[in-house]
Amino acid sequence: MNQYDLPERKNFKLILEYDGSHYHGWQRQLGVLTIQEVLESRLEVMLQSPVGVRASGRTDAGVHACGQVVNFHVHTRLRPEEILRGINSLLPPDIVVLHAEVAAESFHARFSATGKTYEYHILNRPIRSALQRRYAWHVPQPLEPQRMRECLGSLLGRHDFAAFMASGSKVKSTERTIRRADLDCLENGEMRLVFEANGFLRHMVRNLVGTIVEVGRGVRAPEEFLDILSSRDRKRAGMTAPAHGLFLTAVHYTEDLTCNS
Amino acid sequence: MNQYDLPERKNFKLILEYDGSHYHGWQRQLGVLTIQEVLESRLEVMLQSPVGVRASGRTDAGVHACGQVVNFHVHTRLRPEEILRGINSLLPPDIVVLHAEVAAESFHARFSATGKTYEYHILNRPIRSALQRRYAWHVPQPLEPQRMRECLGSLLGRHDFAAFMASGSKVKSTERTIRRADLDCLENGEMRLVFEANGFLRHMVRNLVGTIVEVGRGVRAPEEFLDILSSRDRKRAGMTAPAHGLFLTAVHYTEDLTCNS
Repeated sequence: MNQYDLPERKNFKLILEYDGSHYHGWQRQLGVLTIQEVLESRLEVMLQSPVGVRASGRTDAGVHACGQVVNFHVHTRLRPEEILRGINSLLPPDIVVLHAEVAAESFHARFSATGKTYEYHILNRPIRSALQRRYAWHVPQPLEPQRMRECLGSLLGRHDFAAFMASGSKVKSTERTIRRADLDCLENGEMRLVFEANGFLRHMVRNLVGTIVEVGRGVRAPEEFLDILSSRDRKRAGMTAPAHGLFLTAVHYTEDLTCNS
Repeated sequence: MNQYDLPERKNFKLILEYDGSHYHGWQRQLGVLTIQEVLESRLEVMLQSPVGVRASGRTDAGVHACGQVVNFHVHTRLRPEEILRGINSLLPPDIVVLHAEVAAESFHARFSATGKTYEYHILNRPIRSALQRRYAWHVPQPLEPQRMRECLGSLLGRHDFAAFMASGSKVKSTERTIRRADLDCLENGEMRLVFEANGFLRHMVRNLVGTIVEVGRGVRAPEEFLDILSSRDRKRAGMTAPAHGLFLTAVHYTEDLTCNS
């Protein structure tokens, strides 16, 4: 086959939902099963071509997603709706593609992103839950929503989040801009924290939630939360909240970087 | 030990939550794992005595519960809060006791019940879900809530539900009184049907939901649903909705049959 027979090269953008319970996170690693490996291997079966998928960012082992975004380039005649139907018949039940489109050639799931939204689910009641055990952090001690909202309010805007970054992370800047930090209290002790920012450091949401829960329990004062933030000292922050309460719900892009076709 | 050393005989009432995904339903059966067997064996470990547990009713393989009620008699000095803490440390993550109390000697989880509430969860969107795959029936065809509500409205009151009973069931009467039959539409295509009645026939909720979904899809007219109900003919009703969308959420009793101690 010469190059004139090659179908057009397309840059596909996919939106993914996955249950992270049984995976060692997003990124390919030798010796353990990851979501990237499963997605790439199934795409390669369908497209009969090597496929390298780029995600908006890694999610850690046990973290879920209902809005992870990835892209990959491939020569194919398949249209997005055919990719969508085909890949979903090949993926296991705990991974699904919600949306597929052809993006602009320059679209990059990570570098084109202008922000992300994460949700963190807490179950605040004395007794653990059988039905939510994989999808919410069970906190048996009573939490005071108003104290937690004080912390969340102080996060809005640009801050240096070094105190809430996983120790050992290497990044150019530890400053991020938080656009939204809300707490919704649902029925039966279900609490949902929503964080939207231009970007997140490694473990940042889970470290924030761990410390905010300590404030909600009355173990720390809301003012202490502010002190920790300004200290930029990881050793002062609270525990890392468990992975299974965390959901990557959306990745944000400026509209003009994608085009429907 | 003579009889004077025996601790008082108590009738314990427990409220259970369980994820039915990995069990062959409530009732003990040789060769398969059931919730009754797991609960009884763990209670026997804790109480050092044979325990026979009676439930409000069976739940089928794959059906979930967050309000199943059971009772059992045992000679013990343990108080309900000690039973609660003890049993929850022995049960697997997908079964939990939400509440324990000492009931009146005559309290019987099944015969004292005055009614039950079930919820059925549907996910109505084109693409399946990775996160809700165990807890909602995925219906990809568009459903019209108003058509479904017409069916639900016609269920209220006393009716003969023979058309919606599992074939081969033997019961004295197939009449039941429905006190509540609602449909709530949540975000992202999540639908919840709530049924409260003085009792339910085997597969009754799942058979009702299967037929109501056919009406919602436009496959049948709402009037046909009424015809099926009055026909008392199982062969005329629609498919049985899958077990994994069904939740036993509450069992109702008259207050005076239980006493706190």
